[in-house]
Amino acid sequence: MTDHAAPTAAVLIIGDEILSGRTRDVNLNTIARFLATLGIDLLEARAVGDRQDQIVAALNALRAAHDYVFTTGGIGPTHDDITADAVGAAFGVLVVEHPEALAILERRYGPGEFNAARRRMARIPEGGSLIANPVTEAPGFQIGNVFVMAGVPKIMEAMLQDVAPRLRAGAVVHVRTIRVVGVGEGAIADLLRAAAEARPDLSFGSYPFGFGRDGEAGTQLVIRGRDTAKVDLAEHDLSRELRSAGIDIAVT
Amino acid sequence: MTDHAAPTAAVLIIGDEILSGRTRDVNLNTIARFLATLGIDLLEARAVGDRQDQIVAALNALRAAHDYVFTTGGIGPTHDDITADAVGAAFGVLVVEHPEALAILERRYGPGEFNAARRRMARIPEGGSLIANPVTEAPGFQIGNVFVMAGVPKIMEAMLQDVAPRLRAGAVVHVRTIRVVGVGEGAIADLLRAAAEARPDLSFGSYPFGFGRDGEAGTQLVIRGRDTAKVDLAEHDLSRELRSAGIDIAVT
Repeated sequence: MTDHAAPTAAVLIIGDEILSGRTRDVNLNTIARFLATLGIDLLEARAVGDRQDQIVAALNALRAAHDYVFTTGGIGPTHDDITADAVGAAFGVLVVEHPEALAILERRYGPGEFNAARRRMARIPEGGSLIANPVTEAPGFQIGNVFVMAGVPKIMEAMLQDVAPRLRAGAVVHVRTIRVVGVGEGAIADLLRAAAEARPDLSFGSYPFGFGRDGEAGTQLVIRGRDTAKVDLAEHDLSRELRSAGIDIAVT
Repeated sequence: MTDHAAPTAAVLIIGDEILSGRTRDVNLNTIARFLATLGIDLLEARAVGDRQDQIVAALNALRAAHDYVFTTGGIGPTHDDITADAVGAAFGVLVVEHPEALAILERRYGPGEFNAARRRMARIPEGGSLIANPVTEAPGFQIGNVFVMAGVPKIMEAMLQDVAPRLRAGAVVHVRTIRVVGVGEGAIADLLRAAAEARPDLSFGSYPFGFGRDGEAGTQLVIRGRDTAKVDLAEHDLSRELRSAGIDIAVT
């Protein structure tokens, strides 16, 4: 379904806490939904630990392959916050104090509290520009097609507001969902496959739900595409075919 | 901190629904915690869409670099379930009906309901062995060092029970957490850096919490290592240093 005119993106999640299981990542989903509203295709995500070699390798692979890369994590004041240095190494540039970032942090902490650790947060790769942080002020940064953001979900989400105007939007992907209750994927797979083969410019997905002891079970059929009229028509036709096969549906 | 004697692992999340933002992945965290109990180091995770070229490239990179790879998603009966074929392509083997899988599915569905779509779920790459699915029976499979599991979290989690005995366990990483309330990361960064530099065989992490309007804010300091005595000693020493600096702490 990918429209090659649409910008593409990747996410790089940085942090031992994700891979150790200590923290459950929620940023990927937030970024995915954010990019969907802009019509940008998120094609890949990776999570790596706090190791410079891993970060550099992943970042260089992703920024070469996609229009945009969004990283989360590792930009705080402690020794395990190595993202700025790793991004500098990936781009082959020095990491230096950014005057504007320094001014923001000096203002926030005041002379008694602005210690060396906090001053580290003013260091960004040479040539980078800041990403505003309306929550705790310590900024993220953009360098080239890479947007470096905080790992704390509330801060990351706030930073996206400053990132949005810098992105080239694509045509938004329209989504229709047909909810089939009491019928498993296997029972509608043939109908769905025929619909997908008839419309190769749309994407058809099938997602079962309800494997708990209580509650209803069924399948959600998701039709996606950039042409609203085509998506609506496909939803209309598939709904009719499901009803003809005696299957109860709800469209959302 | 990585002990090179410990087995390493990667996770590959497969599915358009993750990258479109429709579904928030929870399997990575489940697998991360599962591997932590076995002393296996999860070093990397990737998420890709339902595209064979993407799955093959990611899987071949990950299975060459790690002792184990765990995939989630794409093993159902519908046309967008392409994981078995992609894994077969990655390994360069045919994908064929597995007699045991066929028997399981025939028993589950009975003659009237066992259609071609459901029969597809018996197809696995040649040489693979089954992973039991106690929830809906349709099995996952193992081939080489790759474990292919369902995307539905309840099923994925159940499959891990059949995977566990096949894995070589490592020494478990012990974790101590020091909770510092009312003190930001920047205030304890110097102490933490000194502790980390004094003990390069342990890992020291710092995770701020509490950026909401209500509730307390502070920092969690996490010490990790395979030698319990060393982790305990590090926690003891760092706690003492924090208290000496006039910082209130709680150890968990």
